[in-house]
Amino acid sequence: MPAKGKLKSPERFIRPLVRNLDGYAPGEQPHISDIIKLNTNENPISPSPKVLRAIKKSADSKLRLYPNPTAKPLRYALAQLHCCQPENIIIGNGSDELLALATRCFVEPKSSGTKTLKEIARQTIQYFTPSYSLYPILADIHGARKNEFKLAQNYKLPNKTSLIKGKWNFQAALTYITTPNAPSGVGYKTKDLAKICKDQNGIIILDEAYIDFAEETALNLIKRFPNVIISRTFSKSYSLCSQRIGYFIAHPKLITAIDRIRDSYNTNGLGQTAALATLTDLNYYQKQFKRIIKARSQTSKILTEIGFDVIPSQTNFIYAKPKGLSAKDWFNKLRKRKIITRWFDTKECRDWLRITIGTEREMKKFISSTKAIVEKDTQR
Amino acid sequence: MPAKGKLKSPERFIRPLVRNLDGYAPGEQPHISDIIKLNTNENPISPSPKVLRAIKKSADSKLRLYPNPTAKPLRYALAQLHCCQPENIIIGNGSDELLALATRCFVEPKSSGTKTLKEIARQTIQYFTPSYSLYPILADIHGARKNEFKLAQNYKLPNKTSLIKGKWNFQAALTYITTPNAPSGVGYKTKDLAKICKDQNGIIILDEAYIDFAEETALNLIKRFPNVIISRTFSKSYSLCSQRIGYFIAHPKLITAIDRIRDSYNTNGLGQTAALATLTDLNYYQKQFKRIIKARSQTSKILTEIGFDVIPSQTNFIYAKPKGLSAKDWFNKLRKRKIITRWFDTKECRDWLRITIGTEREMKKFISSTKAIVEKDTQR
Repeated sequence: MPAKGKLKSPERFIRPLVRNLDGYAPGEQPHISDIIKLNTNENPISPSPKVLRAIKKSADSKLRLYPNPTAKPLRYALAQLHCCQPENIIIGNGSDELLALATRCFVEPKSSGTKTLKEIARQTIQYFTPSYSLYPILADIHGARKNEFKLAQNYKLPNKTSLIKGKWNFQAALTYITTPNAPSGVGYKTKDLAKICKDQNGIIILDEAYIDFAEETALNLIKRFPNVIISRTFSKSYSLCSQRIGYFIAHPKLITAIDRIRDSYNTNGLGQTAALATLTDLNYYQKQFKRIIKARSQTSKILTEIGFDVIPSQTNFIYAKPKGLSAKDWFNKLRKRKIITRWFDTKECRDWLRITIGTEREMKKFISSTKAIVEKDTQR
Repeated sequence: MPAKGKLKSPERFIRPLVRNLDGYAPGEQPHISDIIKLNTNENPISPSPKVLRAIKKSADSKLRLYPNPTAKPLRYALAQLHCCQPENIIIGNGSDELLALATRCFVEPKSSGTKTLKEIARQTIQYFTPSYSLYPILADIHGARKNEFKLAQNYKLPNKTSLIKGKWNFQAALTYITTPNAPSGVGYKTKDLAKICKDQNGIIILDEAYIDFAEETALNLIKRFPNVIISRTFSKSYSLCSQRIGYFIAHPKLITAIDRIRDSYNTNGLGQTAALATLTDLNYYQKQFKRIIKARSQTSKILTEIGFDVIPSQTNFIYAKPKGLSAKDWFNKLRKRKIITRWFDTKECRDWLRITIGTEREMKKFISSTKAIVEKDTQR
């Protein structure tokens, strides 16, 4: 029978789970001119001229057509690059989309009838902290359990003894590991990651968003472990944040499963075009990686010299703890000088600042500003 | 404790719900030259030159940056167009993404502890059949209950008596209504839709993907009913399938709720650019709509004259039942002549063909081919 009365507010149509969510706070995308933007780990350099030309060439009447639903040409090109099969690859609307799809593919939502440890594990998403702040949000959105493992002060990968001590769940349905990690920038050795993958009775996503700035990739682990997924993105190293292309590499059965719950046309056409063109000009990017790594070590060196605590980074950002002023002050004073960095207001992160490596010119400005801020603070 | 043994197959890491899914079969996107593609309701005309210019102009170094996370400029422009507030609008990676988000925002997944009718209703997604074949798939992916209401032979909107008779669930958490509907092409009157919205104690999404080819929009219903969401897309009428931009218009509380579970950077930058530029050249598109509507009525008229059953359409496609041969034969024979249409192999659809309206030239070819096919069939 039709409904009689109706509450005025539409809130009651919203799931209680969603009503109680906080949501992810993305880094600022300010549109102020001459700002130095070191806050969201974007590459400071333009995409390759070949990529821009390919996009311009494709901006034609064919935009009226749906894009390739499985991004087939891109999957073939990536398979060649990574010496695997196209069936090992799924393309996402940024790797964020795939990370979210993984929660829905591998993890059961919490349920009131849960009793056994096995059932609890099937509902559990696990990750280190601090790490990518999206992971707990994805767990909350899905209504999954969270098992957070607090990293030690040096942010190094814990060994098995530490994992057991820290209540790591070796049966957790889904584990996210950012490698190299964020915000610390610490790189993990493949042989150490392999030990965790071997002991884990559930899916492990090795999120290699920053891999092009690191010493080694764990890519080969997908051949050894059927429970391992490698996540990659064109956003950071390939200067394509705007175009939303990320991908997973894994066992075909895992790929097929994620594919079943994916939107048919999840990746836009010009994004596919841009990513394909990127793969034809990798030399261009490799030169940029070297410049960024050089600027990273120079910046780290200078900050260390003025007494700041800098974690050795294998990414395109550094994580630094200032001396003589709080991280929040450093952040705000840089901001006044039109330099935007990222400060996370959580217990474990609020003493630190995460600084994306920009161009040489930008990093010079960042260093001179930081020095000026420190001197002023010391004078008072 | 670490896991001991491990099954070789990674299948057991996949949720049983996902393992058992069929997945949506998108229409073919063949890349054969000189094919006439009348199968996925794309606009036959290129996006406006202004749109192509805007994309080319934006294909620059700024692609390295994340896009506007809430597509703010686009939401402001759409708010102006629709005489509402930006807070009434959320942008999706195509409207498909938003339709999927709605299931997760408003519908509880099935649960073993369910007892009451109220609980069942909160887990129910409801829709007419035949309609957009994605709806049951979205329900399955989410693990929701499905309540299908079979439309009468004329595909008209049922009245309350029919709804009650057909076991419509007036408490269903989420109801999808495509209006005008697909594949029938039948347009619904706003006053009739209003009656359903008024009686429904749950969210109703009025999916207006084809509204620019229809006689009236139900847009104003969002002002009368806090449970109504209007879904729109730039894909079909604005020739931007490739760029994945759709949107919802609704009460700000519903928009905020969906926003909480959305990926932060769900819409790509050039897609936002293209959609914004589209809104500056609506005249260009309105001329195309008139041409398509004219070609639609001419094609319908001719098919009717040769004895085919054609449902009066308010969309950019027609739904026709052939005479003298089966729909499957018609489909296959058109295909041999390089004309691709859409045939749905379900009990209620397999006697019909859905034909997207192409250019005048394409429709002439479609008509002459159909006539030739019928004549050959009659001669045998």
